[in-house]
Amino acid sequence: MKQSQTTIQVRYAETDQMGIAHHSNYAVWFEQARTELTAGIGMHYRDLEAMGLMLPLTDLSCHYRLPALYEDTLVIQTGITFLSAARVTFGYRVMKGETVICTGETRHAFVGRDMRPVNLKKRFPEVFRTLSEFLPEEENKEE
Amino acid sequence: MKQSQTTIQVRYAETDQMGIAHHSNYAVWFEQARTELTAGIGMHYRDLEAMGLMLPLTDLSCHYRLPALYEDTLVIQTGITFLSAARVTFGYRVMKGETVICTGETRHAFVGRDMRPVNLKKRFPEVFRTLSEFLPEEENKEE
Amino acid sequence: MKQSQTTIQVRYAETDQMGIAHHSNYAVWFEQARTELTAGIGMHYRDLEAMGLMLPLTDLSCHYRLPALYEDTLVIQTGITFLSAARVTFGYRVMKGETVICTGETRHAFVGRDMRPVNLKKRFPEVFRTLSEFLPEEENKEE
Amino acid sequence: MKQSQTTIQVRYAETDQMGIAHHSNYAVWFEQARTELTAGIGMHYRDLEAMGLMLPLTDLSCHYRLPALYEDTLVIQTGITFLSAARVTFGYRVMKGETVICTGETRHAFVGRDMRPVNLKKRFPEVFRTLSEFLPEEENKEE
Repeated sequence: MKQSQTTIQVRYAETDQMGIAHHSNYAVWFEQARTELTAGIGMHYRDLEAMGLMLPLTDLSCHYRLPALYEDTLVIQTGITFLSAARVTFGYRVMKGETVICTGETRHAFVGRDMRPVNLKKRFPEVFRTLSEFLPEEENKEE
Repeated sequence: MKQSQTTIQVRYAETDQMGIAHHSNYAVWFEQARTELTAGIGMHYRDLEAMGLMLPLTDLSCHYRLPALYEDTLVIQTGITFLSAARVTFGYRVMKGETVICTGETRHAFVGRDMRPVNLKKRFPEVFRTLSEFLPEEENKEE
Repeated sequence: MKQSQTTIQVRYAETDQMGIAHHSNYAVWFEQARTELTAGIGMHYRDLEAMGLMLPLTDLSCHYRLPALYEDTLVIQTGITFLSAARVTFGYRVMKGETVICTGETRHAFVGRDMRPVNLKKRFPEVFRTLSEFLPEEENKEE
Repeated sequence: MKQSQTTIQVRYAETDQMGIAHHSNYAVWFEQARTELTAGIGMHYRDLEAMGLMLPLTDLSCHYRLPALYEDTLVIQTGITFLSAARVTFGYRVMKGETVICTGETRHAFVGRDMRPVNLKKRFPEVFRTLSEFLPEEENKEE
């Protein structure tokens, strides 16, 4: 099971008047983490879009444990927790040093430029195979 | 059971290159909906903060059904789905005309300026009572 | 000379840890003000884009006089300070009650979907005429 | 004359439906560039704030030459173009490879936590001296 690591530094504009990183930013950081996960396996997301494959988000969940502060360096550990021909779920852990400060998940559908479903396994088998390497091992075998 | 209504117009800056409102904006709109819910019952959130009551978000979930587009006018229907002395959960439905395009929930803890838990029922009984009017009726009775 | 008025309420997510609305939001509010200026004269910006007319921003300037705070209601007064067949400049005044808290300008080029220049006067004479009503009167006469 | 370099990767959330990075993001990137300039000289901005020194922005200007696209890697070259006991101006050049795609400036006042002016030269002479190394050489001598 592979995992991707993305480093984020909290920007001033991302703080709010409570003095912490505003919760809406985590969704943006997760997206950056997905971008780096796919780039790290040679599939730039913008190339996928150019090929006509899009991954609109259907579900987002975040569990915030501890705040992040301005100038904090955060590491996001990203894996894939579910993959089928029609959908993928990414899982995220946001680390501040050794501490998990937030966990989250995003579910995505595979669609074409017309926003209609795409069967990833058939239409883009290589993308499917590469993504499946990020699944936990037992699930990987089942494929 | 009361409900609050908030009207949002999708801004150009909120769109992304998929041509739809970026998913991270819904968390910001939900927050605006909370602001208007509390303002509508005479409790400006900034006054609550000034009184030393903060509601940091501990959990966020969104289920996106249909996209929102630039200049779309959206109505967010906001209620309270859970309330205790320590926590509150808000529920949101984002409407585009008669269609529900997104649903979501945010869970919050009641804390003081020192980020330590506050017993809302004891410390701010009036806030507690006013919020409880937004609960579904059967739950309201249980209080 | 016409002017457009746009009302904005400062969102929590727009504040930063200095406790004021972050300066980057004003560019977003200016854009919302442009959207409402054009919508107010029957030209929805999304229709202009659909017709193949885009107004990418080439210059932005803001002068910040006083901060805006969370839940503040701001009124943006928007006019047009320069208009030619190739370019338009919008001018903005952000009011908090009777006080001007920020002034700004944005310059835009008229381009087509291919990002090449468009002669607004020739290609979209009606848009040109309608926009010119927002110019200061003496300039209006010169047209 | 010193210069600071900051690398930014355009995030998906930063694009708009024109398919380019939305112009409001440059102000956020400039701020990140300031953060890294000061961090690079051993003065974390959050430490300055903790010491009671804040640099609210009074003026922002951007000149956009060419768009930035999703996943583009941009380098921001940041220097100081003006420095006095009361104010500082930062200058920015956003590079995409060898091409300047945007230039900008931000002016800031030195204030304390009470938002009243602070004489940087007197109150924080070391900060003043360190910042002045980023001035063009001829100006540096004048000090």
